[in-house]
Amino acid sequence: MDEKQLLMIPGPTPVPQSVLLAGAKPMINHRGPEFAALLAEVTAGLKRVFQTDHDVFILTASGTGGLEAAIVNVLSPGDLVLSVSIGVFGDRFATIAKTFGAKVESLNFEWGQAVDPEKLRARLAADKKKDIKAVLVTHNETSTGVANDLSTIGPVVREHGALLLVDGISSLLAMDCQTDAWSLDVVVAGSQKAFMIPPGLAFIAISDRAWAAMAGAKMPRFYWDLKKAKDYLERGQTPWTPAVPQFFQLREALKILEAEGLQACFARHARLAAAVRAGVGALGLKLFADPAHASNAVTSVKKPDGIEVSALRKLMLQKYGVVLAGGQQQLQNEIFRIGHLGYVSEPEIIATLGALGLALRELGSKVDSWAGVAAAVGSLGG
Amino acid sequence: MDEKQLLMIPGPTPVPQSVLLAGAKPMINHRGPEFAALLAEVTAGLKRVFQTDHDVFILTASGTGGLEAAIVNVLSPGDLVLSVSIGVFGDRFATIAKTFGAKVESLNFEWGQAVDPEKLRARLAADKKKDIKAVLVTHNETSTGVANDLSTIGPVVREHGALLLVDGISSLLAMDCQTDAWSLDVVVAGSQKAFMIPPGLAFIAISDRAWAAMAGAKMPRFYWDLKKAKDYLERGQTPWTPAVPQFFQLREALKILEAEGLQACFARHARLAAAVRAGVGALGLKLFADPAHASNAVTSVKKPDGIEVSALRKLMLQKYGVVLAGGQQQLQNEIFRIGHLGYVSEPEIIATLGALGLALRELGSKVDSWAGVAAAVGSLGG
Repeated sequence: MDEKQLLMIPGPTPVPQSVLLAGAKPMINHRGPEFAALLAEVTAGLKRVFQTDHDVFILTASGTGGLEAAIVNVLSPGDLVLSVSIGVFGDRFATIAKTFGAKVESLNFEWGQAVDPEKLRARLAADKKKDIKAVLVTHNETSTGVANDLSTIGPVVREHGALLLVDGISSLLAMDCQTDAWSLDVVVAGSQKAFMIPPGLAFIAISDRAWAAMAGAKMPRFYWDLKKAKDYLERGQTPWTPAVPQFFQLREALKILEAEGLQACFARHARLAAAVRAGVGALGLKLFADPAHASNAVTSVKKPDGIEVSALRKLMLQKYGVVLAGGQQQLQNEIFRIGHLGYVSEPEIIATLGALGLALRELGSKVDSWAGVAAAVGSLGG
Repeated sequence: MDEKQLLMIPGPTPVPQSVLLAGAKPMINHRGPEFAALLAEVTAGLKRVFQTDHDVFILTASGTGGLEAAIVNVLSPGDLVLSVSIGVFGDRFATIAKTFGAKVESLNFEWGQAVDPEKLRARLAADKKKDIKAVLVTHNETSTGVANDLSTIGPVVREHGALLLVDGISSLLAMDCQTDAWSLDVVVAGSQKAFMIPPGLAFIAISDRAWAAMAGAKMPRFYWDLKKAKDYLERGQTPWTPAVPQFFQLREALKILEAEGLQACFARHARLAAAVRAGVGALGLKLFADPAHASNAVTSVKKPDGIEVSALRKLMLQKYGVVLAGGQQQLQNEIFRIGHLGYVSEPEIIATLGALGLALRELGSKVDSWAGVAAAVGSLGG
């Protein structure tokens, strides 16, 4: 029997029942009229989510495939790229660029901190010859639970003239991302995050400036070729057979999200994130992320004194059915992470903090088991 | 309301209800123990389907992504590749190789015909210096309805020493594919064909010789990097977030297929294909494919005299709910195609041929409407 679980990781996130079942519809011809109507509808919905009037394409791939698409469509081998990284996913974006032959210069910030836009501005200002062709940045760094301020970073990069490529895989819908207003040239998102649908699709928004760069971009591309995606979209198709169930699910999820409204969706994520942070703090735990830049999608928590992260996660899973994420790479045993994006409710946040309090006590902490619940309830308000 | 349809195209194919619903299970942590068990189970099942003791990996992508993975993992820019093409998908495989910098020599055969293994043998025998690093071949050419004889081609290529890369996207399970016994080095398949699950996954089998080539292969790869896939598989994970619903569905479909047995599955496809060919012939229509090499997955039919393919497909869809595929590229108005792979029953074959007879009459043919049904029933036997 499958055990009931509370999936509190930063993706895959829980999926509403109506969205799960939308994926169980019979298959259709991906080159027929029903799919064309579906593709048009979800593409229009995505443009509203990305807050863009430009192109958005849907790729059958994980989010990382979307990052690869971002790189190979607009760059050439030898191009100088400035990677502005604050964690695992920022580093991954840079590695992809390197893999395809870009010269990557790193402007890294301490894990747990956000990008300092002034340092970025200074580096770009020093590039008098405009050698830097693109800047890579992560909107929400899932590995550290830090959100970067794209409303500042976007204009800083535009002032220089480089393309700004954004990993928004875990940020879209969990936080405001104004693709056009903030001058973001390429933005990549993933289906299994705040979109409330299973993994299998990546979304990619492309500005007119990115299209212009694409004409001269020489990195090899076939599966990720967005020119092909555009040609096929005009006929109501995707170049390659799409993951049809996730397209059905995207339509259903977008209906739910449009009924809620973008601003309400952002506010919901902010409210839940604040409750988690309050609860975690009340349990005597410390946030890993700089509180000034803590993410509304995922909260990173430092290892409790005297308790192994692996033991805590195991107890949470086996006794309480709460699935938490560990740390990645050098943070593996240093932090754990609570995802609170997508289809997560206030009672589930409370349940998670209750289980966390109980588990901490069982593992030797002297904390009041229910202190996290009380603080989260206070944060959520009446 | 969604209209009832008989989806008779060569993918996406109809999905059994139990498989559809298996995809509607709640999400799980893709880095947790349940997914590790699932991944181990379906990987073992795929090895039996591919008839290989070597590695098989599951990629979150369309089949074309699997083809790109095949190319970029084992080749270097400048490598000489022999493309043995008999249609659209063979040409696509060659285009991918060219896109990533291979020198591609084409050994093409007329569309509707299969590869002549003796011509392939002669070309390889002339390559005394062993310049040809890989041979690309399509097992089942979906665009023309022709199956190549890999049991002959495999040993011919092995004798030369080049790697043999096989597009088996629409062939696996619809026809015998003995990866190890026939010396196939890389075989790619797609989920939405005879596997009876929705699109979203590509499967790729890799021989030891292909692994050896991979060590020196210099084409850039990140998302498709099979070395990463192998490292993660050893920990029960995929490098990137997998399309979890399709993994659940693959487990369910493999259970159904294992209960049937591989040989019975091939025989079922052969029986349905023969019935379709008999029925089409009895309706006075001509096969596009050389009958000696006609595919057991899809039947290509020449445009009926005096009837437009588009008009026929439209009437079949709108009046009878039967979805047929058109031709591709230069065959667009020359043929239509009937898919009969995966979850397709004998009564559905009969229904399709009945609708086809009625539609032909309505469009002016003098044929006996039910001649196709009678011939198919005769072919299927008692």
